[in-house]
Amino acid sequence: MAEIHAKISSCCSNRGNFISYKRANEAMEKSSLLLKYNPVHQKISVPVHNGKPIAESLVILEYIDETWRNYLVLLPQDPYERSMARFWAKFIGEKILITARKVNFTTGKEQELVVKELTQQLKLLDNELKGKPYFAGEAIGYLDIMVVNFLVFRFRNLQEALRINMFTVEKFSIIFE
Amino acid sequence: MAEIHAKISSCCSNRGNFISYKRANEAMEKSSLLLKYNPVHQKISVPVHNGKPIAESLVILEYIDETWRNYLVLLPQDPYERSMARFWAKFIGEKILITARKVNFTTGKEQELVVKELTQQLKLLDNELKGKPYFAGEAIGYLDIMVVNFLVFRFRNLQEALRINMFTVEKFSIIFE
Repeated sequence: MAEIHAKISSCCSNRGNFISYKRANEAMEKSSLLLKYNPVHQKISVPVHNGKPIAESLVILEYIDETWRNYLVLLPQDPYERSMARFWAKFIGEKILITARKVNFTTGKEQELVVKELTQQLKLLDNELKGKPYFAGEAIGYLDIMVVNFLVFRFRNLQEALRINMFTVEKFSIIFE
Repeated sequence: MAEIHAKISSCCSNRGNFISYKRANEAMEKSSLLLKYNPVHQKISVPVHNGKPIAESLVILEYIDETWRNYLVLLPQDPYERSMARFWAKFIGEKILITARKVNFTTGKEQELVVKELTQQLKLLDNELKGKPYFAGEAIGYLDIMVVNFLVFRFRNLQEALRINMFTVEKFSIIFE
Protein backbone atom coordinates (compact mmCIF):
# COMPACT_ATOMS: atom_id res chain seq x y z
CA MET A 1 0.00 0.00 0.00
CA ALA A 2 2.89 2.35 0.73
CA GLU A 3 4.00 1.80 -2.89
CA ILE A 4 0.71 2.97 -4.37
CA HIS A 5 0.37 5.91 -1.97
CA ALA A 6 3.88 7.09 -2.91
CA LYS A 7 3.11 6.74 -6.64
CA ILE A 8 -0.15 8.72 -6.43
CA SER A 9 1.36 11.46 -4.23
CA SER A 10 4.35 11.87 -6.51
CA CYS A 11 2.22 11.89 -9.67
CA CYS A 12 -0.35 14.37 -8.36
CA SER A 13 2.01 16.75 -6.57
CA ASN A 14 4.15 17.02 -9.70
CA ARG A 15 1.16 17.81 -11.89
CA GLY A 16 -0.47 20.87 -10.44
CA ASN A 17 -2.93 21.63 -7.79
CA PHE A 18 -4.26 18.25 -6.77
CA ILE A 19 -4.78 18.87 -3.10
CA SER A 20 -4.12 15.62 -1.30
CA TYR A 21 -6.87 14.15 0.87
CA LYS A 22 -8.26 16.54 3.44
CA ARG A 23 -8.61 14.18 6.36
CA ALA A 24 -10.95 15.88 8.75
CA ASN A 25 -10.97 15.76 12.50
CA GLU A 26 -14.18 16.09 14.49
CA ALA A 27 -14.05 19.87 14.32
CA MET A 28 -13.58 19.99 10.55
CA GLU A 29 -16.17 17.37 9.78
CA LYS A 30 -19.02 19.85 9.58
CA SER A 31 -16.98 22.81 8.39
CA SER A 32 -18.23 25.00 5.57
CA LEU A 33 -15.29 23.88 3.39
CA LEU A 34 -16.28 20.24 3.70
CA LEU A 35 -19.96 20.96 3.04
CA LYS A 36 -18.95 23.01 -0.01
CA TYR A 37 -16.81 20.26 -1.50
CA ASN A 38 -18.85 17.19 -0.57
CA PRO A 39 -22.43 18.42 -0.07
CA VAL A 40 -24.10 15.10 -0.87
CA HIS A 41 -22.31 12.60 1.36
CA GLN A 42 -20.55 15.06 3.74
CA LYS A 43 -17.80 12.52 4.32
CA ILE A 44 -14.33 13.41 5.50
CA SER A 45 -12.00 12.78 2.55
CA VAL A 46 -12.38 15.07 -0.45
CA PRO A 47 -9.61 15.44 -3.04
CA VAL A 48 -9.88 18.69 -4.99
CA HIS A 49 -8.36 19.28 -8.47
CA ASN A 50 -8.49 22.69 -10.19
CA GLY A 51 -10.98 23.80 -7.54
CA LYS A 52 -13.34 20.92 -8.27
CA PRO A 53 -14.02 18.24 -5.65
CA ILE A 54 -14.24 14.53 -6.48
CA ALA A 55 -15.99 12.20 -4.05
CA GLU A 56 -16.27 8.39 -3.73
CA SER A 57 -13.19 6.14 -3.76
CA LEU A 58 -13.78 4.35 -7.07
CA VAL A 59 -14.77 7.58 -8.84
CA ILE A 60 -11.55 9.20 -7.55
CA LEU A 61 -9.40 6.30 -8.81
CA GLU A 62 -11.03 6.45 -12.27
CA TYR A 63 -10.41 10.22 -12.34
CA ILE A 64 -6.71 9.82 -11.43
CA ASP A 65 -6.33 7.11 -14.09
CA GLU A 66 -7.94 9.25 -16.81
CA THR A 67 -6.27 12.55 -15.88
CA TRP A 68 -2.70 11.35 -15.37
CA ARG A 69 -2.68 8.23 -17.55
CA ASN A 70 0.70 9.16 -19.05
CA TYR A 71 2.25 9.08 -15.60
CA LEU A 72 0.25 6.55 -13.59
CA VAL A 73 -1.87 3.69 -14.91
CA LEU A 74 -4.39 2.32 -12.42
CA LEU A 75 -6.71 0.43 -14.79
CA PRO A 76 -5.71 -2.08 -17.50
CA GLN A 77 -5.63 -0.74 -21.09
CA ASP A 78 -7.90 -3.43 -22.57
CA PRO A 79 -11.66 -2.61 -22.25
CA TYR A 80 -12.54 -6.16 -21.15
CA GLU A 81 -9.81 -6.23 -18.51
CA ARG A 82 -11.00 -2.80 -17.35
CA SER A 83 -14.54 -4.11 -17.07
CA MET A 84 -13.28 -7.03 -14.95
CA ALA A 85 -11.43 -4.64 -12.60
CA ARG A 86 -14.61 -2.58 -12.22
CA PHE A 87 -16.72 -5.70 -11.71
CA TRP A 88 -14.56 -7.02 -8.86
CA ALA A 89 -14.23 -3.58 -7.27
CA LYS A 90 -18.03 -3.36 -7.18
CA PHE A 91 -18.17 -6.90 -5.80
CA ILE A 92 -15.89 -5.87 -2.92
CA GLY A 93 -17.77 -2.63 -2.22
CA GLU A 94 -21.33 -3.82 -2.68
CA LYS A 95 -21.15 -7.46 -1.56
CA ILE A 96 -18.16 -8.38 0.58
CA LEU A 97 -18.02 -5.21 2.69
CA ILE A 98 -21.79 -5.22 3.26
CA THR A 99 -21.76 -8.88 4.34
CA ALA A 100 -18.74 -8.17 6.56
CA ARG A 101 -20.65 -5.37 8.29
CA LYS A 102 -23.50 -7.79 9.07
CA VAL A 103 -21.10 -9.94 11.12
CA ASN A 104 -20.98 -7.08 13.67
CA PHE A 105 -24.73 -6.95 14.07
CA THR A 106 -25.55 -10.64 14.35
CA THR A 107 -24.97 -13.37 16.92
CA GLY A 108 -25.23 -17.16 17.24
CA LYS A 109 -26.75 -19.13 14.35
CA GLU A 110 -27.53 -15.99 12.37
CA GLN A 111 -23.90 -14.88 12.57
CA GLU A 112 -22.78 -18.35 11.47
CA LEU A 113 -24.85 -17.99 8.29
CA VAL A 114 -23.40 -14.54 7.60
CA VAL A 115 -19.86 -15.85 8.09
CA LYS A 116 -20.63 -18.72 5.69
CA GLU A 117 -21.86 -16.25 3.04
CA LEU A 118 -18.80 -14.06 3.59
CA THR A 119 -16.47 -17.06 3.25
CA GLN A 120 -18.05 -17.96 -0.11
CA GLN A 121 -17.66 -14.38 -1.37
CA LEU A 122 -14.01 -14.23 -0.28
CA LYS A 123 -13.34 -17.59 -1.97
CA LEU A 124 -14.66 -16.22 -5.28
CA LEU A 125 -12.35 -13.21 -5.02
CA ASP A 126 -9.40 -15.32 -3.89
CA ASN A 127 -9.84 -17.67 -6.88
CA GLU A 128 -9.97 -14.70 -9.25
CA LEU A 129 -6.60 -13.47 -7.98
CA LYS A 130 -4.79 -16.79 -8.37
CA GLY A 131 -1.78 -16.71 -10.66
CA LYS A 132 -1.74 -12.92 -11.01
CA PRO A 133 1.03 -10.82 -9.45
CA TYR A 134 -1.43 -7.91 -9.27
CA PHE A 135 -5.11 -7.55 -10.19
CA ALA A 136 -4.38 -5.09 -13.01
CA GLY A 137 -1.62 -7.24 -14.53
CA GLU A 138 2.05 -6.57 -13.92
CA ALA A 139 1.69 -3.44 -11.77
CA ILE A 140 -0.30 -2.38 -8.73
CA GLY A 141 -3.59 -0.78 -9.78
CA TYR A 142 -7.21 0.12 -9.07
CA LEU A 143 -8.33 -3.25 -7.77
CA ASP A 144 -5.24 -3.88 -5.66
CA ILE A 145 -6.04 -0.63 -3.85
CA MET A 146 -9.58 -1.86 -3.18
CA VAL A 147 -8.36 -5.21 -1.89
CA VAL A 148 -5.65 -3.83 0.37
CA ASN A 149 -7.32 -0.65 1.57
CA PHE A 150 -10.92 -1.79 1.86
CA LEU A 151 -10.57 -5.47 2.60
CA VAL A 152 -7.36 -6.41 4.32
CA PHE A 153 -7.23 -3.46 6.73
CA ARG A 154 -10.92 -3.68 7.63
CA PHE A 155 -10.83 -7.43 8.12
CA ARG A 156 -7.92 -7.09 10.55
CA ASN A 157 -9.94 -4.60 12.58
CA LEU A 158 -13.08 -6.76 12.38
CA GLN A 159 -11.26 -9.86 13.60
CA GLU A 160 -9.61 -7.96 16.42
CA ALA A 161 -12.92 -6.41 17.51
CA LEU A 162 -14.75 -9.74 17.49
CA ARG A 163 -11.74 -11.71 18.78
CA ILE A 164 -12.03 -14.22 15.97
CA ASN A 165 -9.47 -15.57 13.54
CA MET A 166 -11.50 -16.88 10.61
CA PHE A 167 -10.07 -14.94 7.72
CA THR A 168 -6.47 -16.06 7.48
CA VAL A 169 -3.83 -16.58 4.85
CA GLU A 170 -4.35 -20.35 5.24
CA LYS A 171 -7.96 -20.04 4.08
CA PHE A 172 -7.58 -17.23 1.53
CA SER A 173 -4.06 -17.61 0.28
CA ILE A 174 -4.06 -14.69 -2.15
CA ILE A 175 -6.10 -11.95 -0.44
CA PHE A 176 -4.42 -12.09 2.95
CA GLU A 177 -0.94 -13.06 1.80
CA MET B 1 -35.47 5.12 -23.33
CA ALA B 2 -36.50 3.72 -26.72
CA GLU B 3 -33.97 6.13 -28.25
CA ILE B 4 -31.03 4.77 -26.23
CA HIS B 5 -32.07 1.12 -26.73
CA ALA B 6 -32.24 1.68 -30.49
CA LYS B 7 -28.82 3.38 -30.50
CA ILE B 8 -27.14 0.59 -28.51
CA SER B 9 -28.76 -2.19 -30.54
CA SER B 10 -27.80 -0.59 -33.83
CA CYS B 11 -24.25 0.11 -32.69
CA CYS B 12 -23.60 -3.36 -31.27
CA SER B 13 -25.31 -5.40 -33.98
CA ASN B 14 -23.32 -3.56 -36.65
CA ARG B 15 -20.05 -4.17 -34.89
CA GLY B 16 -19.73 -7.89 -34.49
CA ASN B 17 -20.91 -10.51 -32.14
CA PHE B 18 -22.33 -8.55 -29.27
CA ILE B 19 -25.13 -10.87 -28.23
CA SER B 20 -27.95 -8.74 -26.89
CA TYR B 21 -29.24 -9.37 -23.38
CA LYS B 22 -30.15 -12.96 -22.66
CA ARG B 23 -33.24 -12.43 -20.60
CA ALA B 24 -33.77 -15.69 -18.84
CA ASN B 25 -37.00 -17.32 -17.89
CA GLU B 26 -37.29 -19.50 -14.80
CA ALA B 27 -35.98 -22.51 -16.68
CA MET B 28 -32.92 -20.74 -18.01
CA GLU B 29 -32.05 -19.01 -14.78
CA LYS B 30 -30.04 -21.93 -13.49
CA SER B 31 -28.87 -23.20 -16.86
CA SER B 32 -25.26 -24.13 -17.42
CA LEU B 33 -24.93 -21.27 -19.93
CA LEU B 34 -25.99 -18.69 -17.37
CA LEU B 35 -23.74 -20.16 -14.66
CA LYS B 36 -20.85 -20.16 -17.14
CA TYR B 37 -21.29 -16.51 -18.11
CA ASN B 38 -22.28 -15.01 -14.77
CA PRO B 39 -20.93 -17.41 -12.10
CA VAL B 40 -20.64 -14.80 -9.36
CA HIS B 41 -24.08 -13.15 -9.26
CA GLN B 42 -26.00 -15.71 -11.36
CA LYS B 43 -28.39 -12.99 -12.49
CA ILE B 44 -30.45 -13.17 -15.63
CA SER B 45 -29.02 -10.54 -17.97
CA VAL B 46 -25.59 -11.26 -19.39
CA PRO B 47 -24.32 -9.55 -22.55
CA VAL B 48 -21.51 -11.46 -24.24
CA HIS B 49 -18.93 -9.93 -26.59
CA ASN B 50 -16.30 -12.04 -28.39
CA GLY B 51 -17.27 -14.94 -26.13
CA LYS B 52 -16.62 -12.95 -22.96
CA PRO B 53 -19.47 -12.11 -20.59
CA ILE B 54 -19.82 -8.70 -18.94
CA ALA B 55 -21.98 -8.42 -15.82
CA GLU B 56 -23.38 -5.47 -13.83
CA SER B 57 -25.25 -2.58 -15.49
CA LEU B 58 -22.73 0.21 -14.92
CA VAL B 59 -19.80 -2.02 -15.90
CA ILE B 60 -21.64 -2.93 -19.14
CA LEU B 61 -22.30 0.74 -19.97
CA GLU B 62 -18.63 1.66 -19.40
CA TYR B 63 -17.61 -1.27 -21.65
CA ILE B 64 -19.96 -0.17 -24.46
CA ASP B 65 -18.67 3.41 -24.17
CA GLU B 66 -15.01 2.32 -24.36
CA THR B 67 -15.42 -0.33 -27.05
CA TRP B 68 -17.63 1.58 -29.49
CA ARG B 69 -16.74 5.18 -28.61
CA ASN B 70 -16.44 6.15 -32.27
CA TYR B 71 -20.05 5.14 -32.82
CA LEU B 72 -21.81 5.73 -29.51
CA VAL B 73 -20.75 8.04 -26.69
CA LEU B 74 -22.37 7.28 -23.34
CA LEU B 75 -20.03 9.17 -21.01
CA PRO B 76 -18.85 12.80 -21.36
CA GLN B 77 -15.36 13.34 -22.80
CA ASP B 78 -14.05 15.54 -19.97
CA PRO B 79 -12.62 13.51 -17.03
CA TYR B 80 -14.33 15.71 -14.43
CA GLU B 81 -17.71 15.45 -16.16
CA ARG B 82 -17.16 11.68 -16.41
CA SER B 83 -16.45 11.53 -12.68
CA MET B 84 -19.70 13.43 -12.00
CA ALA B 85 -21.69 10.97 -14.15
CA ARG B 86 -20.12 8.05 -12.23
CA PHE B 87 -20.74 9.76 -8.89
CA TRP B 88 -24.47 10.28 -9.54
CA ALA B 89 -24.88 6.80 -11.02
CA LYS B 90 -23.41 5.37 -7.79
CA PHE B 91 -25.67 7.68 -5.78
CA ILE B 92 -28.72 6.25 -7.56
CA GLY B 93 -27.58 2.62 -7.23
CA GLU B 94 -26.18 2.70 -3.72
CA LYS B 95 -28.35 5.31 -1.98
CA ILE B 96 -31.67 6.07 -3.67
CA LEU B 97 -32.54 2.52 -4.74
CA ILE B 98 -31.58 1.07 -1.36
CA THR B 99 -33.67 3.67 0.50
CA ALA B 100 -36.55 3.05 -1.92
CA ARG B 101 -36.42 -0.68 -1.14
CA LYS B 102 -36.75 0.10 2.59
CA VAL B 103 -40.13 1.76 1.93
CA ASN B 104 -41.49 -1.73 1.13
CA PHE B 105 -40.35 -3.21 4.42
CA THR B 106 -41.43 -0.50 6.83
CA THR B 107 -44.73 0.83 8.12
CA GLY B 108 -46.12 3.78 10.10
CA LYS B 109 -43.64 6.22 11.65
CA GLU B 110 -40.64 4.21 10.49
CA GLN B 111 -41.87 4.37 6.89
CA GLU B 112 -42.44 8.11 7.22
CA LEU B 113 -38.77 8.56 8.15
CA VAL B 114 -37.63 6.44 5.20
CA VAL B 115 -39.85 8.44 2.81
CA LYS B 116 -38.38 11.67 4.23
CA GLU B 117 -34.84 10.40 3.60
CA LEU B 118 -35.80 9.29 0.07
CA THR B 119 -37.35 12.68 -0.67
CA GLN B 120 -34.11 14.43 0.36
CA GLN B 121 -32.05 12.12 -1.87
CA LEU B 122 -34.35 12.67 -4.86
CA LYS B 123 -34.22 16.45 -4.30
CA LEU B 124 -30.40 16.36 -4.51
CA LEU B 125 -30.57 14.47 -7.81
CA ASP B 126 -33.35 16.67 -9.18
CA ASN B 127 -31.34 19.82 -8.40
CA GLU B 128 -28.30 18.36 -10.14
CA LEU B 129 -30.32 17.84 -13.33
CA LYS B 130 -31.74 21.37 -13.51
CA GLY B 131 -30.90 23.26 -16.69
CA LYS B 132 -29.41 20.24 -18.48
CA PRO B 133 -31.17 18.68 -21.47
CA TYR B 134 -29.46 15.38 -20.65
CA PHE B 135 -27.14 14.31 -17.84
CA ALA B 136 -24.17 13.77 -20.15
CA GLY B 137 -24.61 17.10 -21.95
CA GLU B 138 -26.37 17.43 -25.29
CA ALA B 139 -27.14 13.75 -25.89
CA ILE B 140 -28.65 10.86 -23.95
CA GLY B 141 -25.95 8.95 -22.05
CA TYR B 142 -24.88 6.75 -19.17
CA LEU B 143 -26.61 8.63 -16.38
CA ASP B 144 -29.86 9.20 -18.30
CA ILE B 145 -30.10 5.41 -18.65
CA MET B 146 -29.67 5.02 -14.90
CA VAL B 147 -32.32 7.65 -14.14
CA VAL B 148 -34.89 6.36 -16.62
CA ASN B 149 -34.31 2.63 -16.33
CA PHE B 150 -33.52 2.30 -12.65
CA LEU B 151 -35.44 5.18 -11.12
CA VAL B 152 -38.48 6.24 -13.09
CA PHE B 153 -39.69 2.72 -13.99
CA ARG B 154 -39.08 1.33 -10.49
CA PHE B 155 -40.72 4.28 -8.78
CA ARG B 156 -43.84 3.85 -10.87
CA ASN B 157 -44.03 0.20 -9.78
CA LEU B 158 -43.29 1.10 -6.14
CA GLN B 159 -46.05 3.73 -6.06
CA GLU B 160 -48.55 1.40 -7.69
CA ALA B 161 -47.71 -1.42 -5.27
CA LEU B 162 -48.01 0.81 -2.21
CA ARG B 163 -50.92 2.81 -3.62
CA ILE B 164 -49.18 6.08 -2.92
CA ASN B 165 -48.50 9.11 -5.09
CA MET B 166 -45.60 10.87 -3.39
CA PHE B 167 -43.03 10.98 -6.17
CA THR B 168 -44.58 13.17 -8.82
CA VAL B 169 -43.47 15.62 -11.46
CA GLU B 170 -44.80 18.44 -9.23
CA LYS B 171 -42.29 17.54 -6.51
CA PHE B 172 -39.36 16.44 -8.68
CA SER B 173 -39.77 18.44 -11.83
CA ILE B 174 -36.73 17.08 -13.69
CA ILE B 175 -36.56 13.37 -12.76
CA PHE B 176 -40.21 12.52 -13.39
CA GLU B 177 -40.84 14.94 -16.24
